[in-house]
Amino acid sequence: MERRRHGEQDLERNTVDGIDGGGGGGKGGRIMVEDAFKGTEIPSWTKQITLRAMVTSFVLSIVFNFIVCKLNLTTGVIPSLNVAAGLLGFAILKSWTTFLGKVGFLKQPFTRQENTVIQTCVVASSGIAFSSGTASYLLGMSPKVAAQLDEGNTPNNVKALSLGWMYGFLAVVSFVGLFSIVPLRKMMILKYKLTYPSGTATAYLINSFHTPKGAKLAKKQVFMLFKTFAISFLFAFFQWFFTASDDCGFASFPTFGLQAYAHRFYFDFSSTYVGVGMICPYMVNVSLLLGAVISWGIMWPLIQKKEGSWYKAGLGGSSLHGIQGYRVFIAIATMLGDGLYHAVSMLIKTLFSLATQKSSENTVNPQFSDHSTEIVNYDEQRRTEYFLKDQIPIWAAGLGYLVLVLICVFVVPTIFPGLKWYHILVAYAIAPVLAFCNAYGCGLSDWSLASNYGKFAIIIFSAWVGLEHGGVLAGLAACGVMMSIVSTASDLMQDFKTGYLTLSSPRSMFFSQVCGTAMGVIQTPIVFWIFYKAYPIGDPNGTYPAPYGQIYRGIALLGVEGVSKLPKNCLALSIGFFFGAIVINLVRDILQRYETKYKLYRFVPSPMCLAIPFYLGGYFAIDMCVGSLILFLWEYKNKQKATDFAPAVASGLICGDSLWGIPAAVLSLLNIQPPLCMKFLSRSVNAKVDGFLSG
Amino acid sequence: MERRRHGEQDLERNTVDGIDGGGGGGKGGRIMVEDAFKGTEIPSWTKQITLRAMVTSFVLSIVFNFIVCKLNLTTGVIPSLNVAAGLLGFAILKSWTTFLGKVGFLKQPFTRQENTVIQTCVVASSGIAFSSGTASYLLGMSPKVAAQLDEGNTPNNVKALSLGWMYGFLAVVSFVGLFSIVPLRKMMILKYKLTYPSGTATAYLINSFHTPKGAKLAKKQVFMLFKTFAISFLFAFFQWFFTASDDCGFASFPTFGLQAYAHRFYFDFSSTYVGVGMICPYMVNVSLLLGAVISWGIMWPLIQKKEGSWYKAGLGGSSLHGIQGYRVFIAIATMLGDGLYHAVSMLIKTLFSLATQKSSENTVNPQFSDHSTEIVNYDEQRRTEYFLKDQIPIWAAGLGYLVLVLICVFVVPTIFPGLKWYHILVAYAIAPVLAFCNAYGCGLSDWSLASNYGKFAIIIFSAWVGLEHGGVLAGLAACGVMMSIVSTASDLMQDFKTGYLTLSSPRSMFFSQVCGTAMGVIQTPIVFWIFYKAYPIGDPNGTYPAPYGQIYRGIALLGVEGVSKLPKNCLALSIGFFFGAIVINLVRDILQRYETKYKLYRFVPSPMCLAIPFYLGGYFAIDMCVGSLILFLWEYKNKQKATDFAPAVASGLICGDSLWGIPAAVLSLLNIQPPLCMKFLSRSVNAKVDGFLSG
Repeated sequence: MERRRHGEQDLERNTVDGIDGGGGGGKGGRIMVEDAFKGTEIPSWTKQITLRAMVTSFVLSIVFNFIVCKLNLTTGVIPSLNVAAGLLGFAILKSWTTFLGKVGFLKQPFTRQENTVIQTCVVASSGIAFSSGTASYLLGMSPKVAAQLDEGNTPNNVKALSLGWMYGFLAVVSFVGLFSIVPLRKMMILKYKLTYPSGTATAYLINSFHTPKGAKLAKKQVFMLFKTFAISFLFAFFQWFFTASDDCGFASFPTFGLQAYAHRFYFDFSSTYVGVGMICPYMVNVSLLLGAVISWGIMWPLIQKKEGSWYKAGLGGSSLHGIQGYRVFIAIATMLGDGLYHAVSMLIKTLFSLATQKSSENTVNPQFSDHSTEIVNYDEQRRTEYFLKDQIPIWAAGLGYLVLVLICVFVVPTIFPGLKWYHILVAYAIAPVLAFCNAYGCGLSDWSLASNYGKFAIIIFSAWVGLEHGGVLAGLAACGVMMSIVSTASDLMQDFKTGYLTLSSPRSMFFSQVCGTAMGVIQTPIVFWIFYKAYPIGDPNGTYPAPYGQIYRGIALLGVEGVSKLPKNCLALSIGFFFGAIVINLVRDILQRYETKYKLYRFVPSPMCLAIPFYLGGYFAIDMCVGSLILFLWEYKNKQKATDFAPAVASGLICGDSLWGIPAAVLSLLNIQPPLCMKFLSRSVNAKVDGFLSG
Repeated sequence: MERRRHGEQDLERNTVDGIDGGGGGGKGGRIMVEDAFKGTEIPSWTKQITLRAMVTSFVLSIVFNFIVCKLNLTTGVIPSLNVAAGLLGFAILKSWTTFLGKVGFLKQPFTRQENTVIQTCVVASSGIAFSSGTASYLLGMSPKVAAQLDEGNTPNNVKALSLGWMYGFLAVVSFVGLFSIVPLRKMMILKYKLTYPSGTATAYLINSFHTPKGAKLAKKQVFMLFKTFAISFLFAFFQWFFTASDDCGFASFPTFGLQAYAHRFYFDFSSTYVGVGMICPYMVNVSLLLGAVISWGIMWPLIQKKEGSWYKAGLGGSSLHGIQGYRVFIAIATMLGDGLYHAVSMLIKTLFSLATQKSSENTVNPQFSDHSTEIVNYDEQRRTEYFLKDQIPIWAAGLGYLVLVLICVFVVPTIFPGLKWYHILVAYAIAPVLAFCNAYGCGLSDWSLASNYGKFAIIIFSAWVGLEHGGVLAGLAACGVMMSIVSTASDLMQDFKTGYLTLSSPRSMFFSQVCGTAMGVIQTPIVFWIFYKAYPIGDPNGTYPAPYGQIYRGIALLGVEGVSKLPKNCLALSIGFFFGAIVINLVRDILQRYETKYKLYRFVPSPMCLAIPFYLGGYFAIDMCVGSLILFLWEYKNKQKATDFAPAVASGLICGDSLWGIPAAVLSLLNIQPPLCMKFLSRSVNAKVDGFLSG
């Protein structure tokens, strides 16, 4: 539910949630985090959700909602709020319980599970602030935005914004996502052992806060965590000063020259991604880099040479009719191929195991774990125990999903007459697959690509409905339906990971997500309305340009024109990559089964990881490889120490950088802007600028 | 003999020469470098100066002379060549001796002493290329430069350049410096135990090259040295790409904001100075920072408020009639006060000890050593032994000085009729004091301020001779006389330090300096002449603007106008600081004698160190304090490891950064310029630039 700082403002990502001392894909091991907590009682799930936690969450939600809304309407760059939520939640409740303890009124001690609940609730709520699309698809429906574009300004393709229908729409679509992939949590967390770097980082942070005194190694880790946390925070603070405008500052550092920078190969000094790289398995980072080289290094430059022949010249880098179309659709196709393969293969395996009456045992997904013979250590044992303790029955999840879908099928068409009941049904039929893909990719690489799937939905449904029947509006509404499911799914799974690592009950996670979503649904429209009424939202030259309104509407217009309007060969390439992803997966599985000597399957890249940089470029892959390199050198020098402390260092890096997002957002709300610009100019441009400045 | 990269191109500095494992002011200790060399024979001093070493030196001298001359005539930024000289000397002779050894013709093995001789010789020779002033005072005499200024363009104040008199002048003035402070070497190296950071770093490097196999700790140190060397070199290389023009790149990074940058408070990412800071005692670094705060933080801003009252408004930052006058003269006065105090107190102590028939024992100068009860370790013992083995008798030095002075007294007035014999006598009477001050300051902080003393000479002698009698020419010539002594003195002392640490004989150091100086005298004019005839030197818009010709002539014009033309209160302030420096020294000595409980004298800052940033600003002091901080944290974490490896790390940092100067110079000679500019703009300027660039 977060966006990256750079040009690509259409991508969300969950950035911060906690580190795994043991399970993160073959890293970790000997220090048992849970050893330190042996003497600490774990409250039952109903006691994890306390009134004080809910009140704290509500207050924090309002604050974060304002921040997210403001950022949505200006640059669209939204920092990850997980750490901030965990930290502020801790600060507030700790002060409160300490105060109560001093005056003798404390009944229930403050636990890490409670802290996780607050974090989950706040993240869910501010997730709605983003996925509600007040600055993207909802705004794209408004007459003001419609008037700015040439086509589609017809009555049935425009809808004036009003609090009433916005509340209705959000209320029915926002909760569906929660039920969509709940049944898959065991597969994601226990079987696939997905990393969820930010979820892991936050969990690590929360564990650190609550570590009882006396645990020596844990104390050392906590110290290490806070040290790197402070360094990373201060470095982010330092970076801020040099970012007076876009293309300023460390995030635009053309580390390998301007040419490479233009192809998005540079190191952007993001401690978040260096930390993420330290948590992710080597193969993930290498796959990402490989994907960046294939796409931005080879494919896109080749396609760009066809400008004028494959697609109209002069469209610029952000038109889906041009090069951007190839990037978006090929990336989605590859991800779909990978996701579909995993979904189907899981389904087959499950059915097979059910058929042979074998209980599906804890088999580790070998692609992301170096130790096929995993030692089940104390931490893991305890975590698994608590993770499996409070079940959410599959029938409950399925029933909830069905009921909510039924409600949507009735309600949504009344709001958007262009969308018929069968459209909604189809949307909700394919949504779980996309949600699975997104949650899976996010678990691997920390990127949530919800808005990408949203765009995909716009194209499909706009094309299906057609311009005359309100296709633009229908596409944008379908985007909302899809985005809220897909984005919630990855958020929820991140939270489950955090919960898993903090021994919080999945049930309390789920309920706090529900509460958070409710808070978000209540708060988001009203906060948006305050801005909408106070300022000329969507005016390109105003304080709140909200550029995504236009962009999303533009995609819908592309959709109503149909797939044939895609740039040449884009569809063919996408189909090729879709099957390519399936073939890569097949190759890996076959190798794993029949080639046990060299274990070559370990070196087969992950198609999901290959595809992510198709759209984004290589910069974050480079950051992550830097993280890998640091870890590699550290392990080379002192294996034990690296194993013990790398997760703490990585969490510190991620959390510190992310937390800076809050003060930065506050500064931006107060209109305090960075005083300096660190600019990178080519020699010739620099000479011109010097001439301009001196004369 | 080197200049700093930044605006202040009038300052020289010896940057690189070797590290002290034991003597560097209370740092170092347990690892005995010389243990590793126990089995290695040390050749007699005549065998240290070999024919092959001289041939190598001659070839390298020519290369370096071209580089220095070219840089002199363009930006005036000259890198330190000590490391390069040591390294290239090693590479050439090692290849040669290895080749001879393979074919069976090797008679004498290649020793570290021989390596030191080459280094010394090349540095001496390229020192002449700088101190000969072909781009500063000599060029300032030429009619072309004279025509560019309003005043003083009279026949007796102008001298057309010609190879003949330039050879004569250089030949007589260049050697004097060698004899001027030779007698003081024992005081500087053994008693005061001055650091000479770059001399120490080079020695460390040379020792590393020649360490016999088997010494385990030494090997580890060598590994550490080469690691940081590589990092520092690569970082300097990386920095290069972003320095397309002045004010670009890391060296202009406004770390603490543009305001602080304007007052020269910033961290300039110079690994050289971070390394230097790691070698220098804490008190030196703190004194430098304090000096920067006093001057650039408080005094200069206050004086600048008087612009228009104390001095004419609108003169800019580089006019000696304006703020620059205060900077230069107050700095010189403070240094003179400090230097004089030390010279006189040394003289008194020596006389006193002679009078009481006591041999002056190895008393450590307590200001720069934390251990008053120094343990004389094996390294030190052996180094001192070799340092005292081959003496250069005082009478020889004195006689040499007198003879050379006499020659000058006769020769120089025939070249410059404005300078009479008594002027020369006076110049040579005060020169040793200034030479002492410079060598002393350089030993403390690595800055050689020779050109500053040269400017001082211009002022004095121009004023004394007067405009009508050729004062401009006389002042510039006196600058040459003074600069060559002062600059040679600090170079020589650096070399003695290197020699001390590599067990090279002082006599071989001295003779290789003589040889190097002779090479320099032969090569410099002819190399300059090649450029002078080939290009329009001194044309402000040409490829070789040589800005210092004008600047030096401008100072001479200030001189002929007399001291009364100095900005208001400048003289009074200078006198105040002169006595202030003496008082601080007195206070320290009194405290040291009578206050033994808290040893407060350790916290009295060094006036010399206070004064250096008066002129330069705080940036390098900040670098050095960063070095101190790193060392402090390291010592806090692991005292033993820090003691063992800090000198190696520091040397690596210094040497790597400095060595990059050579490829950078070659790139500049080939007219290959950095492709990028990392620029720092304020928010408002950035907006303007963005507007300009976008249309």
